[in-house]
Amino acid sequence: MNAQQKFDAAIKKNNSLVCVGLDAQLDKLPRHIHALRNPLFEFNKAIIDTTHDLVATFKPNIAFYEAYGIEGLKQLKLTIEYLRRTYANIPVLLDAKRADIGNTSKMYAKSAFEYWEADAVTVYPYPGLDAIQPFFDYSDRMTILLIKTSNPGAAKISDLQVGEKPFYLKLAEEVKSWDKKNAGIFVGATYPSQLKEIRAIFPESFFLSAGLGAQEGEIKEAVQAGVDKDGGGIAFNASRSIIYASEDKDFAEKAREATEKLRDEINQHRNQ
Amino acid sequence: MNAQQKFDAAIKKNNSLVCVGLDAQLDKLPRHIHALRNPLFEFNKAIIDTTHDLVATFKPNIAFYEAYGIEGLKQLKLTIEYLRRTYANIPVLLDAKRADIGNTSKMYAKSAFEYWEADAVTVYPYPGLDAIQPFFDYSDRMTILLIKTSNPGAAKISDLQVGEKPFYLKLAEEVKSWDKKNAGIFVGATYPSQLKEIRAIFPESFFLSAGLGAQEGEIKEAVQAGVDKDGGGIAFNASRSIIYASEDKDFAEKAREATEKLRDEINQHRNQ
Repeated sequence: MNAQQKFDAAIKKNNSLVCVGLDAQLDKLPRHIHALRNPLFEFNKAIIDTTHDLVATFKPNIAFYEAYGIEGLKQLKLTIEYLRRTYANIPVLLDAKRADIGNTSKMYAKSAFEYWEADAVTVYPYPGLDAIQPFFDYSDRMTILLIKTSNPGAAKISDLQVGEKPFYLKLAEEVKSWDKKNAGIFVGATYPSQLKEIRAIFPESFFLSAGLGAQEGEIKEAVQAGVDKDGGGIAFNASRSIIYASEDKDFAEKAREATEKLRDEINQHRNQ
Repeated sequence: MNAQQKFDAAIKKNNSLVCVGLDAQLDKLPRHIHALRNPLFEFNKAIIDTTHDLVATFKPNIAFYEAYGIEGLKQLKLTIEYLRRTYANIPVLLDAKRADIGNTSKMYAKSAFEYWEADAVTVYPYPGLDAIQPFFDYSDRMTILLIKTSNPGAAKISDLQVGEKPFYLKLAEEVKSWDKKNAGIFVGATYPSQLKEIRAIFPESFFLSAGLGAQEGEIKEAVQAGVDKDGGGIAFNASRSIIYASEDKDFAEKAREATEKLRDEINQHRNQ
């Protein structure tokens, strides 16, 4: 089973397009977790145990572990090992936003896919195909290319006009020309019209998105823009709104409630 | 002393614009090093000891350590600790090519500058100023923005025409508008004319470059294009041509010879 099939199977089994972002920060953990030997791991484990049947994927963002150096990365390793041992059917999406020229990308790809054993990893497409190819060489894994983020400053670059089109669409077309079966696509959810136009370029690809609004109307627009023809093929990430739904002893239960609520809100709009 | 002053001082003291890239790979190490307890560190230490008086900076590329997981990263830590303890005047340039939206960049910046104690780190500018600001917040460190890499595939994206100008120049202008005193600039050396036009936009900034040709004419063109008005302000990286100058017991001596040769070749063209 390749990575895309694994995403599809988890989406189907859990009837969910929710990606839970495991962005644990020491200073935000409940006090009783903070006191444990491996607080980041223990926090993640509790979140994973209460939400695993409600998600399409878990997405640890490696930056949050790197911030604590080797000690943080050990706990990321514990987290991924736990996930693969306990919930082997849920894909692990490592959010690492790597990219370099070929010789170096080979090492990043080895790290993401061999050491971290990720099913998928996020990568910037800017250095071009020869630079990203070492990621694609892991044919059963997925390389998710960041086409458009939704933060305000990004637009000043990604919306530059290249002839008749904005830069991000030219970037999408370049990626399309690579014709990689194991490429996934990241587009932010803040501007559903952009998500829709990029989905049209990659009708069959797995998408990752993030930054869903809190209003029902915003969720509806983004979901309808992002899903494939069968109402799936995409995961919408939520991190803080789920993992910090409560900062108290009940954090894991509250995370489950927040995940279930988001799953149901998204599902309302998947097949319309 | 801020990072740019530290680069300037090392350039002056060692009369060198050479950046030695510490991209150690297990399968390329001499056999007697491979057998040691911390082979990547022992290899780096030997290279550092024989070249420290000939360089402007050392640049470990973190990908090469991540490829070996936590065990590799421990040896990167040993390497940086050794550098800071033994040759405190030589800046440590961590080549990590990070970038994410603000909340996550904060964690990457904390990792690069607090955990790894780097003087400078390489970062992609694409997500925009609000995303990169957490790096700039470390005011005594340098954030080196990748404007133009020289690999063949990159040109298909970076040379897209935005009105009258190629995309990479628009990107450079956007970065210029951020007006950050602690921003450095990366441009590949393969196309000296591009290095020259970007140097013109940032006359005062510290530059990092890579991919110097082997021919004297190529070195001359790139050096003249990249130096500031005083014939300095830039470091040219060389990795494999130095650290693997020999793959035998004499690797460290040969690395010294290669570094000295490159330093002298570059210096010939600095003040013309």
